[in-house]
Amino acid sequence: MAKGQTSKHKRRVRFDPNNVDIVVDQGENLLKAAIDAEVHITASCGGAGVCGTCKVLIKEGEVESTRTDKLSAEEYEQGFRQACQSNVLTDLVVHIPVESRLETAVLAGEREEIATSVQQSEVLAAGWKFNPPLSKFFVKLPPPTLKDNASDLSRLLRCLKQQHGLDNLSVDFGVVKKLANVLRDGNWEVTVTTLLTGVETRLTGKRGLVVTNIEPGDTREKHYSLAIDIGTTGVRAQLLDLNRGKALARGVDYNGQISYGEDVISRIAHSQKRGGLHRLQKAVVDTINGIIRGLLTDAGVEVGHVGYMTVTGNTTMLQLLLGLDPKYIRLAPYTPVANFLPLVKASKLGIEVGEHVYLYALPSVASYVGADIVAGVVGAGVHQRKKLTLYVDIGTNGEIVVGNSDWMVTASCSAGPAFEGGGIKHGILATAGAIEGFDINLSNFEPTLSIIGETKPKGICGSGLINIVAGLLEAGVIGQDGKFYTNLSTKRVRKGGDGYEYVLAWAPDTQIGKDIVITEVDIDNLIRAKGAMYAGYKTLVKSVGLELTDLEQVIIAGAFGKHLDIEEAITIGLFPDIPRDKYTYIGNGSLLGARLACFSTDIVDDARRVARMMTNFELSENSDFMNNYIAALFLPCTDINAFPSVKEKLARLLKSKSGRGVTI
Amino acid sequence: MAKGQTSKHKRRVRFDPNNVDIVVDQGENLLKAAIDAEVHITASCGGAGVCGTCKVLIKEGEVESTRTDKLSAEEYEQGFRQACQSNVLTDLVVHIPVESRLETAVLAGEREEIATSVQQSEVLAAGWKFNPPLSKFFVKLPPPTLKDNASDLSRLLRCLKQQHGLDNLSVDFGVVKKLANVLRDGNWEVTVTTLLTGVETRLTGKRGLVVTNIEPGDTREKHYSLAIDIGTTGVRAQLLDLNRGKALARGVDYNGQISYGEDVISRIAHSQKRGGLHRLQKAVVDTINGIIRGLLTDAGVEVGHVGYMTVTGNTTMLQLLLGLDPKYIRLAPYTPVANFLPLVKASKLGIEVGEHVYLYALPSVASYVGADIVAGVVGAGVHQRKKLTLYVDIGTNGEIVVGNSDWMVTASCSAGPAFEGGGIKHGILATAGAIEGFDINLSNFEPTLSIIGETKPKGICGSGLINIVAGLLEAGVIGQDGKFYTNLSTKRVRKGGDGYEYVLAWAPDTQIGKDIVITEVDIDNLIRAKGAMYAGYKTLVKSVGLELTDLEQVIIAGAFGKHLDIEEAITIGLFPDIPRDKYTYIGNGSLLGARLACFSTDIVDDARRVARMMTNFELSENSDFMNNYIAALFLPCTDINAFPSVKEKLARLLKSKSGRGVTI
Repeated sequence: MAKGQTSKHKRRVRFDPNNVDIVVDQGENLLKAAIDAEVHITASCGGAGVCGTCKVLIKEGEVESTRTDKLSAEEYEQGFRQACQSNVLTDLVVHIPVESRLETAVLAGEREEIATSVQQSEVLAAGWKFNPPLSKFFVKLPPPTLKDNASDLSRLLRCLKQQHGLDNLSVDFGVVKKLANVLRDGNWEVTVTTLLTGVETRLTGKRGLVVTNIEPGDTREKHYSLAIDIGTTGVRAQLLDLNRGKALARGVDYNGQISYGEDVISRIAHSQKRGGLHRLQKAVVDTINGIIRGLLTDAGVEVGHVGYMTVTGNTTMLQLLLGLDPKYIRLAPYTPVANFLPLVKASKLGIEVGEHVYLYALPSVASYVGADIVAGVVGAGVHQRKKLTLYVDIGTNGEIVVGNSDWMVTASCSAGPAFEGGGIKHGILATAGAIEGFDINLSNFEPTLSIIGETKPKGICGSGLINIVAGLLEAGVIGQDGKFYTNLSTKRVRKGGDGYEYVLAWAPDTQIGKDIVITEVDIDNLIRAKGAMYAGYKTLVKSVGLELTDLEQVIIAGAFGKHLDIEEAITIGLFPDIPRDKYTYIGNGSLLGARLACFSTDIVDDARRVARMMTNFELSENSDFMNNYIAALFLPCTDINAFPSVKEKLARLLKSKSGRGVTI
Repeated sequence: MAKGQTSKHKRRVRFDPNNVDIVVDQGENLLKAAIDAEVHITASCGGAGVCGTCKVLIKEGEVESTRTDKLSAEEYEQGFRQACQSNVLTDLVVHIPVESRLETAVLAGEREEIATSVQQSEVLAAGWKFNPPLSKFFVKLPPPTLKDNASDLSRLLRCLKQQHGLDNLSVDFGVVKKLANVLRDGNWEVTVTTLLTGVETRLTGKRGLVVTNIEPGDTREKHYSLAIDIGTTGVRAQLLDLNRGKALARGVDYNGQISYGEDVISRIAHSQKRGGLHRLQKAVVDTINGIIRGLLTDAGVEVGHVGYMTVTGNTTMLQLLLGLDPKYIRLAPYTPVANFLPLVKASKLGIEVGEHVYLYALPSVASYVGADIVAGVVGAGVHQRKKLTLYVDIGTNGEIVVGNSDWMVTASCSAGPAFEGGGIKHGILATAGAIEGFDINLSNFEPTLSIIGETKPKGICGSGLINIVAGLLEAGVIGQDGKFYTNLSTKRVRKGGDGYEYVLAWAPDTQIGKDIVITEVDIDNLIRAKGAMYAGYKTLVKSVGLELTDLEQVIIAGAFGKHLDIEEAITIGLFPDIPRDKYTYIGNGSLLGARLACFSTDIVDDARRVARMMTNFELSENSDFMNNYIAALFLPCTDINAFPSVKEKLARLLKSKSGRGVTI
């Protein structure tokens, strides 16, 4: 131990298996060192020491660490420590166990599939014109003479009017700054980029065109933009060709803010620490920059030809991106700084694109009804149809819209991180090794698991959790109250540290070397999550005098995407028991809307209109919601008659439950 | 000598009598060292080595220096060197002789006087409303509740509409950024600052209001702006109270760019060197920052309460301030980047004011017809009267306007620096020690000098030069061709290094320890300068079918201000020989216009209209101008009949010239 030394001594920390080195001051927090080294360690609680997800193995060297009850005596003896509770004392070699590691492989695999599912979907906005807010114009100017030595700017504006009918243009200072040289470098032939402004405000009728860029020669062919969806967990982006209206490349990565906490509330809490807001902004900007670099490389596009970007995300994500203090989003009465955000220069936020690139954030509705759902609703064309639609974006924060082309009400419910594997004993994100599918033999209660990436399991993701709970319910392993029947003849149901649990996989069959279980506490967490969502729909639908059975269409969007089994989700009561043909998945609706907003001013106008027409219901202090929520804390629901098909299935299974193996 | 050593050795240079030290790399240019140390050395040619004005005495240590013909063998022996031609070899003590030094005392003395003369003048713009483009509004907002938890921005905009009828506002991102905290810090009572935009463009009808700032509580009382005139030589500024429409403090300093050359052409030349544009921008910004600090201290105003600034200056000065490459101003066909410059954030240019402060540059007309003359014409109300007016801004670059409320033509002539003491053997700026007044005894040709600051003379300023040449002409010491009569019985006329010369002061009676003379070369320079101005007026007036005698009003503005003797100026042919009661001085017309532009949107609109209505004549390649110019290379003019009062005076003096002392 080198406790007596000054904390300014430098120590080298190697992270294994990433093989990344970083030199830090002695005394540095180990989780922070990992963040600085860009090594992702899951830290669900944001470094508060209470979740135990940031467990690491100190292979060489010494740390100073507080032991909490998240580490067993055995683990501690082996050298496991919580990264967030450890300070660097000497040079270190740190091993990050598989369950503490984030992997992008599976998320990356989503790319094409979601994109495809979106393109094939029939629930898309229709009838919009291809008229991007960003345009390029080629201009030939007569060179100045002594008889006509107007300023360079006057000459340019005159020609833009004569040749393209453009009038009343504003001109960015950056354009004025390089104007003289660009005109002459291009031998008086230049390409001018204009952006339609005014479409970002709440107001109507205040349009303008601003000249954002000028390039020598004819560069009209090189005309690109970026669409970015900033999820609390994952950031997804597309590089778009504004001449052809298509995506040239797609990219995805974990939101670098994950290391500061898994949900928006823990992020907001972190933003209130000294320097926290800046750290969170930088984290997501770093993520975005990494994705952009990949997109440009993939498509062979130079960064200078990217002229614009649209961004969606929940209200907190957008405020953090723009460096706007999200403090009051968390405090009643939950006010965001702004739902309609001004255009900002992306480079000012640290995004590595040209100085001419404006960032347009789609409008939000309220603190917990973000631009992501506005974008999704618009992308899915909900506002274009008379059909009574339920649009649900499922994630840590569940966002709900009910309505059609005439009206929309919206609400959000804090489902908690269960749907993304958070707060679950062996919960992990939907990455390689996650159990996503589950069958159970009704006679001996032995499971059959489907694992993402077809490896040994290392944990359970959100959709797996739904399937497991549905399966256990249907097999009579748990009751409608989510409690285990303890009289079953199977070793898989047993009493553990958190009460009764079911063993999904025995230690030797896992990546983590210990039994993977689902506990009553986990089930209870899921019941509360699905109960919140269900109560949300029900309260919203009721509040406009309708019933869930009146719904003509249900559109599901969100992180789940293709992994979600609607049937099982209905079984546990996450979705209402209505005909299955009313359901459609659209994958990432938010990114879909962001892309369309690059392609069409119509879509931007629609988003603006939709954001204004949405009436937000605050559910958190609504007594109907609370009643509905409590009634929903059952599988599928206290009132089983609200789920006739589930009622029938459970009754049928119960009857048949005498030896026959049933695969559900 | 330490020639063999590496140039990275550090050397300390002390400038005396400023008593300023600076540490530089060995080998550093001495003029650059002085600039870095913020010690002003006159360097008329911008460091090209051809003017000899940057002469310094090396008191201790060694420099490596090229000797040019600007230093006599004796001076070189004594240790004089041209700073621009010297590189630092060892630690140095450098004495800056009085004639190489710039002093601000006299310029500062101008403050009150010019301000007063302006206020008393009858040639001022009239009828404008006091309606500053910048306004403050106090707003009380209802705090958010669960029933009304609109975003902070929506709440603010709603209240601004309800309480002040403000609609269609844009909001700066900086305001959005601090909005949440300011609203709560002010307990939902805030003061909002709005700026009228669209008035800076060439176009009409594109107005908007942008919210530029928000402060907690009621700060309406603290509502200030700055008006700044950036002269090639001097920068003058006023701190204005936008509630009361008055100047609270006035400041003046030399434009720090002087060290890079005295006229716009040498500045443009410098801007083309590596890093030159940035250096020039920084130099003037440093000057402005120094003045602002003084203004704020004088008036006891906090910098955060300055909300706006207006700037005028010639086209080159404005482009340099904004960092716009002025290269093409110097090259035919002389195109500026822009005459109507976009609003920019002052802090972006390095000006030390709040981030919310926009800088508005008044519009220019052409490369050599700047915002300074537009501001002056508007401030003087030329555009409001039917009177046929000649407006002249005299400086290194002479700017001329002829016209009235219906039409205006404008031109500029490169007079050269003679009017500011440049290019004259003992020429200096109008600072302490400059000879500004001159009488001559007609019998013995002995002079009586008036010196600025009532000290011993150290050189001749522009207005002194005019008075001296007029006096010598009237005394018959020189002829109308500007050549000396060499048969006069006085030792004061003698042959010197530059041909014949007249000794104004003998060495013992000067600050510089040598004879101060005016040479035939100096007189020739002045004749060319006044010839250019005169040819300018004449050509302009002729080009609209009029004669100089048709002028109903002549308004003189510029650096000369109160020092200029109109009668003598007419004698040498600088101004047309028309009734003296048509003449008015307004001192610094440019600053006057800048101030009014802070007080009144009407004035801004007028400036925009005036800039658009001015028809610019390029004189440089106009054959009439060349003919008029050549005809004007005589005292007062080849055609003496164009100057009847001068003709009469000269004839009278000639007659009386036989012994009687005459004080002119």
